[in-house]
Amino acid sequence: MLRIVYDEAVLRMTEGLLPYLAKEDARHFAGIFAGNSLDGVHSHGMNRYARYLSDMETGLCDARVTRATRVSGFGALEIWDAAGGVGPLIAEQMAQRVIELAREHGIGCCALRNNSHWLRAGRYGLMIADAGLVGLCFTNTCQNLTAWGTKAPSLGNNPFCLALPRAKGSLLMDMAVSQYAYGKLEIMAQEGKMLPQPIGYDLEGNETCDPGKICESGLMMPMAMWKGNALSIMLDLAAMTLSGGRSSLQIGPPSRGETRMSQVYIAVRADIADNLDEVADKTEAMIDFLHSLPPADGVHGVHVPGENLQETRRRNLKEGIPVTEITWQRILEAAERGRRGRNEEET
Amino acid sequence: MLRIVYDEAVLRMTEGLLPYLAKEDARHFAGIFAGNSLDGVHSHGMNRYARYLSDMETGLCDARVTRATRVSGFGALEIWDAAGGVGPLIAEQMAQRVIELAREHGIGCCALRNNSHWLRAGRYGLMIADAGLVGLCFTNTCQNLTAWGTKAPSLGNNPFCLALPRAKGSLLMDMAVSQYAYGKLEIMAQEGKMLPQPIGYDLEGNETCDPGKICESGLMMPMAMWKGNALSIMLDLAAMTLSGGRSSLQIGPPSRGETRMSQVYIAVRADIADNLDEVADKTEAMIDFLHSLPPADGVHGVHVPGENLQETRRRNLKEGIPVTEITWQRILEAAERGRRGRNEEET
Repeated sequence: MLRIVYDEAVLRMTEGLLPYLAKEDARHFAGIFAGNSLDGVHSHGMNRYARYLSDMETGLCDARVTRATRVSGFGALEIWDAAGGVGPLIAEQMAQRVIELAREHGIGCCALRNNSHWLRAGRYGLMIADAGLVGLCFTNTCQNLTAWGTKAPSLGNNPFCLALPRAKGSLLMDMAVSQYAYGKLEIMAQEGKMLPQPIGYDLEGNETCDPGKICESGLMMPMAMWKGNALSIMLDLAAMTLSGGRSSLQIGPPSRGETRMSQVYIAVRADIADNLDEVADKTEAMIDFLHSLPPADGVHGVHVPGENLQETRRRNLKEGIPVTEITWQRILEAAERGRRGRNEEET
Repeated sequence: MLRIVYDEAVLRMTEGLLPYLAKEDARHFAGIFAGNSLDGVHSHGMNRYARYLSDMETGLCDARVTRATRVSGFGALEIWDAAGGVGPLIAEQMAQRVIELAREHGIGCCALRNNSHWLRAGRYGLMIADAGLVGLCFTNTCQNLTAWGTKAPSLGNNPFCLALPRAKGSLLMDMAVSQYAYGKLEIMAQEGKMLPQPIGYDLEGNETCDPGKICESGLMMPMAMWKGNALSIMLDLAAMTLSGGRSSLQIGPPSRGETRMSQVYIAVRADIADNLDEVADKTEAMIDFLHSLPPADGVHGVHVPGENLQETRRRNLKEGIPVTEITWQRILEAAERGRRGRNEEET
């Protein structure tokens, strides 16, 4: 594992994006990859960079489109169309827009159709919470999960996030509807670990606790059985209904290329209560209480979602972002291609 | 199990409520108990009637308060105070109000503090969806769940619901953050069934698959381990933050009496897209697709949340609502007390 200084990471990734994006957009997008890794979300940061470049190269993501266009609106509710453009740039546009809507109306909602992968759901919830509002965002995905009651890949492992403003750093829950991410299963398989419960099927359709076999088959169940199943279906249909975009069924299996997803961004003002000091105190009291509880055997007590974010960010800013060699190698190769392309253009 | 005709159920429960509520409110509240059972939600319907009467008798629920009062508002966002009043009546008031707000602003939110038990979350989501909007409602509860990472009761088994309008009957996900409800565990214990996974602890603090031992200890884990944990914390703090009301920590353990909870009601218009026909078609296509999948061994295929609601309601209207003898006995006793009380008043 390497440790890469944040500025260096942004610089190199910007170079690799210049064949596809204008300078300002390239730098911004590079900052999103680096920022997600800086926050410790290694599954949805710099590791996804090479794949995103490839998606822009093949046209699965249309790099010419970096802003969504407004389809319709009614007061605090708006529908936008991303037209297959650059997912995270457009997602940030939506987060900004929904903050404006909520500041004006108390609560706001942007429903977005046809967006490419937004990388990390939590980024947009965090933008909203860091602006002082409560944020709720969700997206659908391709059919990378088996619905409860069948062994066929059929639902999306749809991520959703809920973020709360807090003086000491926003709280953030950012999760998908499976118990583990495929990336996490791959790591467990490499380490020879077994799962505590069967959360997927092997190639023969048998339930298994072997993470490697689930990666092999691509047959992962929803978390919490019928409950994750219900959550996946409803998040998918809610995003489709509100945006008028595609459901997981239209997005299809992963082999078809995950693109043109439906997303929802909601922001709510958290500053209209008559007792804001008490609210802040009650948040801290709950966190302190949870930290005070005796840890169950072999577990490090209770974790409050997002509580370690500031510390992780500080440490990675100081010590460099942890990146695997293969990820960094690909970033450097893309940067080299980007520089070569520019030189050719100039001559 | 008895089968009680809906009108008879409402009539008898109204009689029992008359010592506490005005006639119109009593009939309305009786209709909520009966309606939840009619929809097949037997854990949050008529079975809760005797307990609610007792809560009104002891003052845990203040039966004099049947309407919330507005604390503050900003555009489409309002904070209300239920002052410990009659939970489901006030929850319906909030659902109605948030529909109005959403119709006016596109999206609306009512955050409510100090409400008594609202019985069934899904009722309010369904009201919103049946009015043609997307509904999202959640509440916090008393500390009836062990946080992940400790064996101490510390979090609420907070219910949340997401409801979507649909021509053939609204879709409705209504769930709490545990894998099973305590009521379900009790039934499994009576039937001598074991759980597929340990989802709680026995009195000695050992993980167990024995539902009876979990009922005995009251030490149930969140669903999906750390994920249900995160969801419980964030729903609780979001409801507290938006309403300025109490968190699960202030509500305390079940022994203190579950009251004065914080709740959030959100409604979003689902009629501003430019392709509403397509949206309806895509919803049906997803449901048809899920139904077409081969069932996994021993399971009856894929269930779409809320899809059976209309049928359940029709059947129970026709055949009567299934009610246990003890539940019906208590309802008849309360009705008798109510009639006696009125006669004494009249003489």
